[in-house]
Amino acid sequence: MLERFKVPVADRVYVPDPQMRAAAEAIFLAMGLAEEDARRAADVLIFNDLRGVETHGVSNMLRSYVDGYRSGALNPRPEFVIERETATTATVHGGNGLGLHVAPRAMELAIAKAREFGMGAVGVHHVGHMGGAGYHAMLPLPHDMIGVAMSTSGRPIVVPTWGAEPRLGTNPIAWAAPAETMPPFVFDIGTSQIAANKMRLARRVGAKVAPGWIATADGTPVMEEIDPPEQFFILPLGATRELGSHKGYGLGAVVDILGSVLTGLGGGFISGIPGYHLMAYRIDAFTDAAKFKRDMDSWLRGLAATKPAPGHERVVYAGLLEAEEERRRLEEGIPYHTEVIDWFRRIGDELGLSFDFT
Amino acid sequence: MLERFKVPVADRVYVPDPQMRAAAEAIFLAMGLAEEDARRAADVLIFNDLRGVETHGVSNMLRSYVDGYRSGALNPRPEFVIERETATTATVHGGNGLGLHVAPRAMELAIAKAREFGMGAVGVHHVGHMGGAGYHAMLPLPHDMIGVAMSTSGRPIVVPTWGAEPRLGTNPIAWAAPAETMPPFVFDIGTSQIAANKMRLARRVGAKVAPGWIATADGTPVMEEIDPPEQFFILPLGATRELGSHKGYGLGAVVDILGSVLTGLGGGFISGIPGYHLMAYRIDAFTDAAKFKRDMDSWLRGLAATKPAPGHERVVYAGLLEAEEERRRLEEGIPYHTEVIDWFRRIGDELGLSFDFT
Repeated sequence: MLERFKVPVADRVYVPDPQMRAAAEAIFLAMGLAEEDARRAADVLIFNDLRGVETHGVSNMLRSYVDGYRSGALNPRPEFVIERETATTATVHGGNGLGLHVAPRAMELAIAKAREFGMGAVGVHHVGHMGGAGYHAMLPLPHDMIGVAMSTSGRPIVVPTWGAEPRLGTNPIAWAAPAETMPPFVFDIGTSQIAANKMRLARRVGAKVAPGWIATADGTPVMEEIDPPEQFFILPLGATRELGSHKGYGLGAVVDILGSVLTGLGGGFISGIPGYHLMAYRIDAFTDAAKFKRDMDSWLRGLAATKPAPGHERVVYAGLLEAEEERRRLEEGIPYHTEVIDWFRRIGDELGLSFDFT
Repeated sequence: MLERFKVPVADRVYVPDPQMRAAAEAIFLAMGLAEEDARRAADVLIFNDLRGVETHGVSNMLRSYVDGYRSGALNPRPEFVIERETATTATVHGGNGLGLHVAPRAMELAIAKAREFGMGAVGVHHVGHMGGAGYHAMLPLPHDMIGVAMSTSGRPIVVPTWGAEPRLGTNPIAWAAPAETMPPFVFDIGTSQIAANKMRLARRVGAKVAPGWIATADGTPVMEEIDPPEQFFILPLGATRELGSHKGYGLGAVVDILGSVLTGLGGGFISGIPGYHLMAYRIDAFTDAAKFKRDMDSWLRGLAATKPAPGHERVVYAGLLEAEEERRRLEEGIPYHTEVIDWFRRIGDELGLSFDFT
């Protein structure tokens, strides 16, 4: 997370993770979720908060999920219907359930198929927000598997390179791979320059929008630093064609093909319905798993030991800072903005729940 | 291909594709390749030249392959040894053969597995240059499958975000998916800002290096336009952390994990040996294939119909310009730099071959 998005020190309230986990779980239960699903959904949010991925933690997302249950857009008790299935694949109707607990169920199916046949992939359609792809991509890791998770977005907000109309969601994609002793590799990105809810976060913490992140309403890339505007589109990863935005645009398109067209939904901006693509690879279907994890250790250690460029203290790899942050926050608690704590008090009052955040 | 990399009009010699194909094939045969392999290798190069991917056509690559055969680094008659195999996966020792013909053989194995089980993935190690990932990712398309191809590079040349030492190759990755009547989606990129051999191409055509493409020898990103320098590292896709280079770095790392660590080679910069990851998805394992292709048509047509931003004439998608270029070059011939034609004359003399380029 860039410095500009962190909660200012004066506005921080530290909450131990078990307390916030209990609060999130209680809210999901109050929305009508089954106990197991509420536990899983809270786990995804706290996982993100512990790892410093605040864009996908309770601060930004929980209130929008509550809105979804209240409006009827989200179904608290979704069916999980397998519509098509082969030895290694399945396509699932997610019953308009929240992805936080539907995606793990789909990934478990992919893991079971990978265990038997080497690989497994499951597509899901008619499903809500995934809550960050990294969590789901990590589920195969304890099984000595590599995980992949992608999600399209219902609402297009990203312009194609040279385009003046949004055609893609921020279309996140994550790959995760285990190591032996080093923190695992967990690469979890939006294929756009920034996550859509980073703009919301930027407004809350008073952060500026950096050059190359957004386009004006006519599609022109904004290449200077500005305050978050009301009207904007997000640029694909790469910002401009000369800087490689065709690569971000294409990667977002891959997510649309696998998560949306391949699940039968049609193209994302046409259907307006989110879809997932989840995959698991069994490592020993390719090479010895113990050797793989030792090799990952050496390689990840080598990446982290890279001599830094002037002005930088160290080099990291995807998942390293997040693992360090998790260790820190398990000890110190998770820093939330006072505004978020206020929201919990309000929603608690509405739902007749009381939260202990000390 | 950016304008700056095109062969200047005054230096262009147009050669019809069958003539250049015959020349490339004759050179591969002279290097000792079996007839089928020589035909395939030439097909990959001409495919790239027809589609305007000159970085991976005969101009840049053929001479380095000839050097490889002459030095013994490349084996013209490699064995293809399956070292590990499951229903859906295999790991192959490529016998130090050129990837141009080894990769298609591995992809055919992945396709056969996908036909039976829904998905197939094959890793290859001890293999030479792939000659562009797009060609190989497209092989599953006629089988109503989606294709994926990745390759690590032996020689690290890309610095991690904040790093001053190269740790990754340009690590290309490609996804391809069929449509019914629209040109297929073919997304084929290096995970770095530019391909390594674009620097060679830039020197030949006198092009400048754009801001955000390379770093100086101490890892500092070069953010102004300069002449191609002698010493440099390539930046990951995204250029700088603020512009998203951690995403390009992470994507390159994914290619290293799947292409190198998962094939048993260890991390790319540690082993120094290239490896591949090739994959095929059977579309009807997820959804109806005819519907998928019709949906792809609507979606691709919609992307191409996006209103353009000021200063741009149209919006395209990955594979569209390449398909248009292919149609044009099949008619008009392929424009080569006179220097390339001179090289063919010289190598022809050395090998006792004569080429008809008229």
